[in-house]
Amino acid sequence: MTQLNRKRIAIIGAGPCGLSQLLAFKQAEQDQLVELICFERQAEWGGLWQYTALTGTDSCGEPVHSSMYRYLWSNGPKEVLEYVDYTFEQHFGKPIASYPPRAVLYDYIVGRAKAGDIRKFIRFRTAVRHVDFDDETKQFSVTVEDLRTHKTTSNLTFDHVIVATGHYTIPNMPEFEGIDRFPGRVLHSHDYRGADEFVGKNLLIIGGSYSAEDIAVQCYKYGAGSITISYRLFPMGFKWPDSIREVPLVQRIEGRTIHFRDGTSVDNIDCIILCTGYRHNHSYMADKLRFRCSSNLYIPFDLYKGIFWVAEPRLAYLGMQNQLYTLNMFDIQAVLVRDVFLGCVTLPDDTRDKRHQNIRQLQVREETLKLDDHEGFSDLQTDYLRDLINCCDPTTVPKFDLDKSNAGMYKFFQDKRDSILTYRDQSFPSIFPPFKQAPVCTTAWIENKDDSIAGYLSSIETV
Amino acid sequence: MTQLNRKRIAIIGAGPCGLSQLLAFKQAEQDQLVELICFERQAEWGGLWQYTALTGTDSCGEPVHSSMYRYLWSNGPKEVLEYVDYTFEQHFGKPIASYPPRAVLYDYIVGRAKAGDIRKFIRFRTAVRHVDFDDETKQFSVTVEDLRTHKTTSNLTFDHVIVATGHYTIPNMPEFEGIDRFPGRVLHSHDYRGADEFVGKNLLIIGGSYSAEDIAVQCYKYGAGSITISYRLFPMGFKWPDSIREVPLVQRIEGRTIHFRDGTSVDNIDCIILCTGYRHNHSYMADKLRFRCSSNLYIPFDLYKGIFWVAEPRLAYLGMQNQLYTLNMFDIQAVLVRDVFLGCVTLPDDTRDKRHQNIRQLQVREETLKLDDHEGFSDLQTDYLRDLINCCDPTTVPKFDLDKSNAGMYKFFQDKRDSILTYRDQSFPSIFPPFKQAPVCTTAWIENKDDSIAGYLSSIETV
Repeated sequence: MTQLNRKRIAIIGAGPCGLSQLLAFKQAEQDQLVELICFERQAEWGGLWQYTALTGTDSCGEPVHSSMYRYLWSNGPKEVLEYVDYTFEQHFGKPIASYPPRAVLYDYIVGRAKAGDIRKFIRFRTAVRHVDFDDETKQFSVTVEDLRTHKTTSNLTFDHVIVATGHYTIPNMPEFEGIDRFPGRVLHSHDYRGADEFVGKNLLIIGGSYSAEDIAVQCYKYGAGSITISYRLFPMGFKWPDSIREVPLVQRIEGRTIHFRDGTSVDNIDCIILCTGYRHNHSYMADKLRFRCSSNLYIPFDLYKGIFWVAEPRLAYLGMQNQLYTLNMFDIQAVLVRDVFLGCVTLPDDTRDKRHQNIRQLQVREETLKLDDHEGFSDLQTDYLRDLINCCDPTTVPKFDLDKSNAGMYKFFQDKRDSILTYRDQSFPSIFPPFKQAPVCTTAWIENKDDSIAGYLSSIETV
Repeated sequence: MTQLNRKRIAIIGAGPCGLSQLLAFKQAEQDQLVELICFERQAEWGGLWQYTALTGTDSCGEPVHSSMYRYLWSNGPKEVLEYVDYTFEQHFGKPIASYPPRAVLYDYIVGRAKAGDIRKFIRFRTAVRHVDFDDETKQFSVTVEDLRTHKTTSNLTFDHVIVATGHYTIPNMPEFEGIDRFPGRVLHSHDYRGADEFVGKNLLIIGGSYSAEDIAVQCYKYGAGSITISYRLFPMGFKWPDSIREVPLVQRIEGRTIHFRDGTSVDNIDCIILCTGYRHNHSYMADKLRFRCSSNLYIPFDLYKGIFWVAEPRLAYLGMQNQLYTLNMFDIQAVLVRDVFLGCVTLPDDTRDKRHQNIRQLQVREETLKLDDHEGFSDLQTDYLRDLINCCDPTTVPKFDLDKSNAGMYKFFQDKRDSILTYRDQSFPSIFPPFKQAPVCTTAWIENKDDSIAGYLSSIETV
């Protein structure tokens, strides 16, 4: 079917979310229902899964996007994020273990994108500088800069804009008394590039969530001297090895001595790593379109179904919530965006007020959860996905067994509680029929220092 | 004299240039000729002279402005930058040596500002987000964000805008093959915070100018293992100590081995420090007002008299050139800006074309200079200052003996050629009558590891 008035769709970002969105629209593009342009600031696709040793500013004068570090291995089982239409086994030609290293995940994500032939829609090294919306014409106006030529192009018009820029780039930096005069190195996890810089050092890690946990364990694995983790609300409480301990929040810093809120202190700290999370930064969006979120919520304000800008649902944001599910959730979000923007489905709440009410109801559920109730948040995000799937066109939505994936989450939380040093050695069953159990690696994760694709694949037990 | 139509003046930045500009306008403000507002993104004044251990992003989500590091001492004699109306001796109550450490310079700069009672004009933690100009009303329109409340205020109008934001914040990052996979630490000098992180390490420093020179010598002083400096155009050629050597530009990086363009290589590099300069970044200025400069020129394009935006001289930029002179040059620039904006003097070239021609003539002189002709550049900037002074109202312009200051520059270059490790131990005469010789420190710079104000002042020989 040919159509003269093809809808013009702008996607901002070619990371996992942007790639899911391009694949979701691919058939509609072939049917000439839509025109797709994806703007990507980086030189390559894959978003935060790209590793670079560089920090700070990139060669185009833009902030380095990646917070990725060497020796990062997945901190959740691959079975709960696997693409429905493109399995790990399909990509690598053999079954792989449940916790792959970064390079394997990157290869998998871009492998599907390559197979989908969607690179042609992406304008690399192109930064979106401004997005506005005309309430009369119902058109978005987008200003972009070609970072290679520094040429700015204004007033590109689109019927829809989909923001897929991620939210793990701009550090959240709380203030601590004396930290600006600390005589050793201070860095945010965004600038952490690997544990080998900290061998033999006494580290203070500030934070109580995934980054703090993973960087502490990696630094232990590679030989840090001592690791003190300072939490804001409550300790993670894992069975830490002897050289890792958890203490309350930093109160003040004097020289290399750190004082904590419980009156205790630690001396001779060499380095402070702030694992204090990230800020959303959508400064390129006009004020009236700008998603703001001061903390990382499962049910963010102002995004209906976690996606559509409440005040103007022609605008969508992907992957802006706190995430337990990742790649497969982005796929479902992208499919719903496509279904809504093409008019294939209509969302239930047809006014701004109703959309806000719907969000508020879900937020109440989030607010009742204790912050360490991992199973509760997993139930919440599983139910969120169930609702998204129910909103999509049932003939095309990717389907998987949500109860099985949620059970996988539960096992993952329990494995970590059992042992923070061995949970990555555990094996999970696939959530797709015939529910095959993943093989394991012949080397335990704590001993395995080869995180290359070849090294990883060769370490997998043949069944 | 009271005037109903006070000119509204916006100054962007409260570093050395912005402070010079506030002081220059102070009398006119008291006479109610002008209204002054200075917008400063940081929490304090003093611009790049503020030290913080933090790198990356600050607590407001803004890029950390400072490129300042521990143990930085002035790399030029204080006599060639001293304020005419506020001497070091006046500030510290005694004569001081010619090369003070950072804290001393910071104290001196903000000391004058305190004495001048100009803090009341500064809106701290306020980022300028956009500046535009209406050709009909001849008014600038300024959008600012209060970084504490995240409240944005648009359409503040001004008769004049003066940009004093500096150009040592956004790193210039050339690409080198393999650097993104270097297994050690890679940082730009912007993120360098002190040599003690590099004790015993083998360093590669890329760059051929002041940052490369100073960081190399500081790392030598504090005990780096070896220092290889890789230059782009030509070596600095100082009489380096044995552990420092200069090599041609990096060609490619493989693991910890660095290959250079002359076919040589060096192994076992632990850390790469890019001393590759900075980029101008005035992205908050509307396109038609935006100063762009890809390299650090003594005679920049588009700035008439090095200051006034050629296309619209109601807009001024301070301190945007490559600098040999600093604090005293900013004062003269600021006085000329005041004289012109208040209508006390008229600049000779009254059309855009004539202004461009004037710049072009000066650029031709800059272009004839070889890049290592330090004396030639000093002559060029001395003549530039002479011309600025001649443009100002002669009754109020700060005057000093330019030949004496230029002679100081010459001596400084020769001292460095004589010995890069001892040039900071030399003493200079004041350029103000009675031309007193500065005292010296009792400890040689290479031995002196106390860079506090108290330590420095107590180390000065009593004459």
